[in-house]
Amino acid sequence: MPKLQNVLEEIVTANRILAHEGVVDSFGHVSSRHPDNPNHFLLSRARAPERIDVDDIMEFTLEGEPVNPGGRAPYLERFIHGGIYEARPDVNSVVHNHSPSVIPFGITDKKLKPLLHMCANIGQQVGCWDSHDKFGDTALLVEDVAMGRDLAKAMGKDRTILMRGHGATVCAPNVRHCVFISIYLEVNAKLQMQAMAMGDIKFLTPGEVDKVIARTGPYTLNRAWENWCRRAGRPFVAEL
Amino acid sequence: MPKLQNVLEEIVTANRILAHEGVVDSFGHVSSRHPDNPNHFLLSRARAPERIDVDDIMEFTLEGEPVNPGGRAPYLERFIHGGIYEARPDVNSVVHNHSPSVIPFGITDKKLKPLLHMCANIGQQVGCWDSHDKFGDTALLVEDVAMGRDLAKAMGKDRTILMRGHGATVCAPNVRHCVFISIYLEVNAKLQMQAMAMGDIKFLTPGEVDKVIARTGPYTLNRAWENWCRRAGRPFVAEL
Amino acid sequence: MPKLQNVLEEIVTANRILAHEGVVDSFGHVSSRHPDNPNHFLLSRARAPERIDVDDIMEFTLEGEPVNPGGRAPYLERFIHGGIYEARPDVNSVVHNHSPSVIPFGITDKKLKPLLHMCANIGQQVGCWDSHDKFGDTALLVEDVAMGRDLAKAMGKDRTILMRGHGATVCAPNVRHCVFISIYLEVNAKLQMQAMAMGDIKFLTPGEVDKVIARTGPYTLNRAWENWCRRAGRPFVAEL
Amino acid sequence: MPKLQNVLEEIVTANRILAHEGVVDSFGHVSSRHPDNPNHFLLSRARAPERIDVDDIMEFTLEGEPVNPGGRAPYLERFIHGGIYEARPDVNSVVHNHSPSVIPFGITDKKLKPLLHMCANIGQQVGCWDSHDKFGDTALLVEDVAMGRDLAKAMGKDRTILMRGHGATVCAPNVRHCVFISIYLEVNAKLQMQAMAMGDIKFLTPGEVDKVIARTGPYTLNRAWENWCRRAGRPFVAEL
Repeated sequence: MPKLQNVLEEIVTANRILAHEGVVDSFGHVSSRHPDNPNHFLLSRARAPERIDVDDIMEFTLEGEPVNPGGRAPYLERFIHGGIYEARPDVNSVVHNHSPSVIPFGITDKKLKPLLHMCANIGQQVGCWDSHDKFGDTALLVEDVAMGRDLAKAMGKDRTILMRGHGATVCAPNVRHCVFISIYLEVNAKLQMQAMAMGDIKFLTPGEVDKVIARTGPYTLNRAWENWCRRAGRPFVAEL
Repeated sequence: MPKLQNVLEEIVTANRILAHEGVVDSFGHVSSRHPDNPNHFLLSRARAPERIDVDDIMEFTLEGEPVNPGGRAPYLERFIHGGIYEARPDVNSVVHNHSPSVIPFGITDKKLKPLLHMCANIGQQVGCWDSHDKFGDTALLVEDVAMGRDLAKAMGKDRTILMRGHGATVCAPNVRHCVFISIYLEVNAKLQMQAMAMGDIKFLTPGEVDKVIARTGPYTLNRAWENWCRRAGRPFVAEL
Repeated sequence: MPKLQNVLEEIVTANRILAHEGVVDSFGHVSSRHPDNPNHFLLSRARAPERIDVDDIMEFTLEGEPVNPGGRAPYLERFIHGGIYEARPDVNSVVHNHSPSVIPFGITDKKLKPLLHMCANIGQQVGCWDSHDKFGDTALLVEDVAMGRDLAKAMGKDRTILMRGHGATVCAPNVRHCVFISIYLEVNAKLQMQAMAMGDIKFLTPGEVDKVIARTGPYTLNRAWENWCRRAGRPFVAEL
Repeated sequence: MPKLQNVLEEIVTANRILAHEGVVDSFGHVSSRHPDNPNHFLLSRARAPERIDVDDIMEFTLEGEPVNPGGRAPYLERFIHGGIYEARPDVNSVVHNHSPSVIPFGITDKKLKPLLHMCANIGQQVGCWDSHDKFGDTALLVEDVAMGRDLAKAMGKDRTILMRGHGATVCAPNVRHCVFISIYLEVNAKLQMQAMAMGDIKFLTPGEVDKVIARTGPYTLNRAWENWCRRAGRPFVAEL
């Protein structure tokens, strides 16, 4: 079981990495399930990912109630995180972003599917949640428990879901894996836009996707994590 | 009422941010209505936005007359700013730029419309002003009061307008909001070009656009502003 | 008449700027006519533009003969420069590059034309020289006086010309103007590729192009030059 | 014959360059045949290219057996390198990457062909190896001698080959040449995607490709190598 202090540092690093690699801009966030209490999760106060420090990380119940706010303003969309942690005991980290190349797939009828082995962890096919279907005209933000649960329901057992006119949400067994999927979701989306303009695409086969997912572990995740840490000016810790 | 010195610093920061985020290159400018005299506005001398300091900021009448030039050469296109401040009491900041992804929408018949919640503040649809319609062959620059007023008239009550073969102009209630719209106008344009190549786009609904605009305030603007300040090497001031 | 030492520094700065702004990579070069001898020109030894210092600048006759080589290896393609200086007394600076967005226009039948006021200085339309037409299968390099003169002939009175499968050449009355055109040639090409994918383009009118060119002088060139100098880590000299 | 220590430094530099120029991300690798033993090759332990130092370089037999592992974990795909060194005595360096613009050509029926003189060294046309043809559903990795030999066989006498849903492999007579081809393979792929969207492409003629290849030597390679070394923060050594 990783220690709380280490998890807090990991969340900070994850935020800095996602900003440095262009997956989040001034918005977007990454959380971790609390290592000592599976019914709580850890998420920064409302601040740009590139700026976050350990003191910004707050603790929330799965309903999005802050435990010790201490005057800090939370992200409005913390319900994305709570909804998924509630529905998915296998998930220990959630990323929400407006990853640029992903947006066009959420607003057209083209399906995002893995075409590169590095991207197989996004899953066999990426679904799309449209807040308008159930909630009508809104500011598109997941701003209460009901919306968070609806998004989690649409996500089902997948690790990625698009959000129409808004962005994407990714979940995974741990923070490093969640960051890895988020970055390669952007890679896949960009490549797929380019390849679609060239003709029919030979995507990965379902069997290939399964084989890559089955093999993805610390050997792969840590190679990228070390590099991304250094690029973002953060120390690399081999094991959490 | 913000103090003059603070507004001058805010204008410098806005210029540096727009340059750092790729919305202006060596050209383009941002102004603020004078905090103590609504019939004057503040704008840098003719200099690249990335290079501007407080000493470069000049004061102008709404007709574009410099109050204390002190040997400084003004931007030729200061009439863009004066024209809009004259027509729009609700406006306290104007940005003019040649934002790269926006240009193609000004020279084709495709309409720029918001497709991402972050971009709703550009308005329901972005119009286009063609200087040729009224002024014929020119160097395309808004170089006198008549052209500035014609542009302001075409803009109507909107916050953004494209300029054919030239760029775009954005206005807003304050500098931070104006910078925010300018940056997300570029984001929307780039995403729309990509999505158009993929098929029909599901844009934000009119109701969604209104809801996002109604909600946009310091909570949102300052999160981005803090981040952009730090990225551009400028201090962050929470309130003006 | 600018002094030789100032021109040497200007050439170094021009090389650094073109590299920093992405118009040249490890190849490409910029020259100036010799300020004291119009039958000679100044050009770096064979070195990447980002690395060039004053000691690298060599003097050549219009036939490409080095005056004081001092063991330095010249660029093979110095004949581009000599050919143009010989044919064009109005020209005092030449840039040759492989500017990325320009390449596709040299290998398809699409014509590069100005669509943005900043880009009018590229000329009404940009022609294309194909070395294969007269010289057959070569390494595509302009490696002797005959090829340099053929390129200059194809260029005629224009300031820009594409070279099929190779790049582009730009010439102008001075170094700053030549760098300015080179950078905005890349801008125009990139924008035109994007706009062509969207539909018919409303290019600048011939009259607009003429008006912008007539107005382009130190007021415009120096604003960009100051900014590019600082970005490339070079001192800015207001007048040569 | 270059000395071992120099070759180790050259491999480190090659890794850093490929990372800095965007040809590899956290994955991909570059090797050299051992200067003293043609039946061995030198390749980093499993680490991101941007992070590699001399102590990371391991020695392998052509079957991919580490000679002095010293607790270091090797790349799974070292069999790419061994397979090619075994089949190709003319080859002394191999790069494997997931070069972004190259991926779409491996998953569509469009053929990658040289269209710019700088890119002629990729060869007359670039083939594509699909691991699925012979090995069925795998994680797409070249993880044993059989797969490495099959890839080398598909490559034949070429210097570049695409790998469906995976990336590309490049080989050359020396490290600098191999890095050069890898970088200009990415350049060509990006340009070809852009040009294909514009219409029919006039590629280099077969004769032009041959002429450029025949001329490519230290004069050309070192100009780029010096620049790339400095950009990547590595010392430049004129001769190995």
